[in-house]
Amino acid sequence: MNTLTLPTFDDVAAAAVRINGYAHKTPVITSRTVNEEFGAEVFFKCENLQRMGAFKFRGAFNALSKFDTQQRKAGVVAFSSGNHAQAIALSAKLLGIPATIIMPHDAPEMKVTATKGYGGNVVIYDRYTEDREQIGRDLAQKHGMTLIPPFDHPDVIAGQGTAAKELIEEVGALDAFFVPLGGGGLLAGSALSTRSLSAGCKLYGVEPEAGNDGQQSFRSGSIIHIETPKTIADGAQTQHLGNYTFPIIRRDVDDVLTVTDAQLVECMGFAASRMKLLIEPTGCLGFAAARQMKSHLHGKRVGVLVSGGNVDIARFCSLLAA
Amino acid sequence: MNTLTLPTFDDVAAAAVRINGYAHKTPVITSRTVNEEFGAEVFFKCENLQRMGAFKFRGAFNALSKFDTQQRKAGVVAFSSGNHAQAIALSAKLLGIPATIIMPHDAPEMKVTATKGYGGNVVIYDRYTEDREQIGRDLAQKHGMTLIPPFDHPDVIAGQGTAAKELIEEVGALDAFFVPLGGGGLLAGSALSTRSLSAGCKLYGVEPEAGNDGQQSFRSGSIIHIETPKTIADGAQTQHLGNYTFPIIRRDVDDVLTVTDAQLVECMGFAASRMKLLIEPTGCLGFAAARQMKSHLHGKRVGVLVSGGNVDIARFCSLLAA
Repeated sequence: MNTLTLPTFDDVAAAAVRINGYAHKTPVITSRTVNEEFGAEVFFKCENLQRMGAFKFRGAFNALSKFDTQQRKAGVVAFSSGNHAQAIALSAKLLGIPATIIMPHDAPEMKVTATKGYGGNVVIYDRYTEDREQIGRDLAQKHGMTLIPPFDHPDVIAGQGTAAKELIEEVGALDAFFVPLGGGGLLAGSALSTRSLSAGCKLYGVEPEAGNDGQQSFRSGSIIHIETPKTIADGAQTQHLGNYTFPIIRRDVDDVLTVTDAQLVECMGFAASRMKLLIEPTGCLGFAAARQMKSHLHGKRVGVLVSGGNVDIARFCSLLAA
Repeated sequence: MNTLTLPTFDDVAAAAVRINGYAHKTPVITSRTVNEEFGAEVFFKCENLQRMGAFKFRGAFNALSKFDTQQRKAGVVAFSSGNHAQAIALSAKLLGIPATIIMPHDAPEMKVTATKGYGGNVVIYDRYTEDREQIGRDLAQKHGMTLIPPFDHPDVIAGQGTAAKELIEEVGALDAFFVPLGGGGLLAGSALSTRSLSAGCKLYGVEPEAGNDGQQSFRSGSIIHIETPKTIADGAQTQHLGNYTFPIIRRDVDDVLTVTDAQLVECMGFAASRMKLLIEPTGCLGFAAARQMKSHLHGKRVGVLVSGGNVDIARFCSLLAA
């Protein structure tokens, strides 16, 4: 692990140039109701309004933009049942790179359709009998494709960091900043931007309570692996941090917090009814943690990263009706 | 009617100064999916992200800002079961003006609570036996209060026009612009801004098919009154245009279009699932009409005014599930 070269804020700045004109510069939304509830100024960076509905587009597009001629020709391979797959497929389409996405046989039809819609070549595997990482490596070796993992890659981390960079450049220095944590790409990238642009800011990663491997890892000092956690925050069902993301998080983040699924549902409902924003459960992690800590945030300038909005309407309605 | 002095774009510009720092400068959202579907560039001006969830705050705040000392002391009275009530109550609170809101006995509990939450004094009347306009006039006369109607007032129209002003100033001239039409405050205000800032733009008002009094009035040349229409677009259930709004619309608007409730529901679903925005049925009027006309919009720059997002989640879910 010591031989890894970690990305820096310079890489985030370079990523910002690459994605410019391709990614949306997403809006920062404020709510007087939230500000009054918190007694603070709260800034929501709305990556649910990013292309394909999540911050993932930033990292994927940045990584693919750096491909050389040979890599562009051979194509990219990715495995994901979620937003990363769509981010890679869309980025590849925009850059004219062939993309192969490995998805489980039980992936939601909607996501398979969306990925194909972006021009991705979908390879289905059996979640219970086959190893997607092995399939990915085989494809990569056999066809010379480049594998882009969902979070543990310097270019992915640098790309994800552009959201925090935009936020802080738009609203100024923050006192506290809450960022969802799954595999750590978004949090590590946000850490690079925060430490460069708002050095004194308290930076928190936020996980679902049922999947607190990041908190355990952060506090123990080594990467802890867990079973796939049961939580509605499907974007944070990762089993462990990565070799790139962990050391950055360990170095630059102040703490990792957890929230319950019930808190996430409450925040989804609040965001929809009061802020008119559709946010997926994972996307509410930062908001829920900030709310939980609000008595400590009086008079502060608080950033909340809303990571995505990809929840289908039927699921959204059933979560809120429960 | 000839003696009325109609507001002009100068009044919109003055309103923009008054609301600055109080109203949100709402974001303009674009969607590549929509752009590809239309073969056009479509700009959504998101007034669902405005304070209290609708453009109504702009007009109410502008009108109340112009009160003199005596008016401020005596207070404002308004009748509305919808967004105007909350807009007046919130604006009055911010400006330290007492507000009395006349609401029907069967107004949704949520709206009564919200209005009271903003500090408004709520007077309940019986929709079937009492005349709210008479109650309003009585209160105004007896206590010297100033009545601010929901749309037919020069300061309200001027305030509503600031949304279109912001949109065009941000994105540049438009070729076509679709604006929801109820009583016409938003459309008339938008017309003032459009004619000054993007003179060649085709400007369309959009009504629910069941409540096309505006279309009838526009095409016949005089204000047509209709029965309260049955439509899910509750913000456009007005029975007639106003004495201020009609002549501006007649002069400056290119046509009034209609869409069905089914088209509104489709757009609500699309906006939620693809754009992550919660939009109330009335707020989808512009989008639905633009979609209906998309074959005529190839290569154009298209504005869509999203007027509000105040639909409660249970209703939203039941509309989309139907």
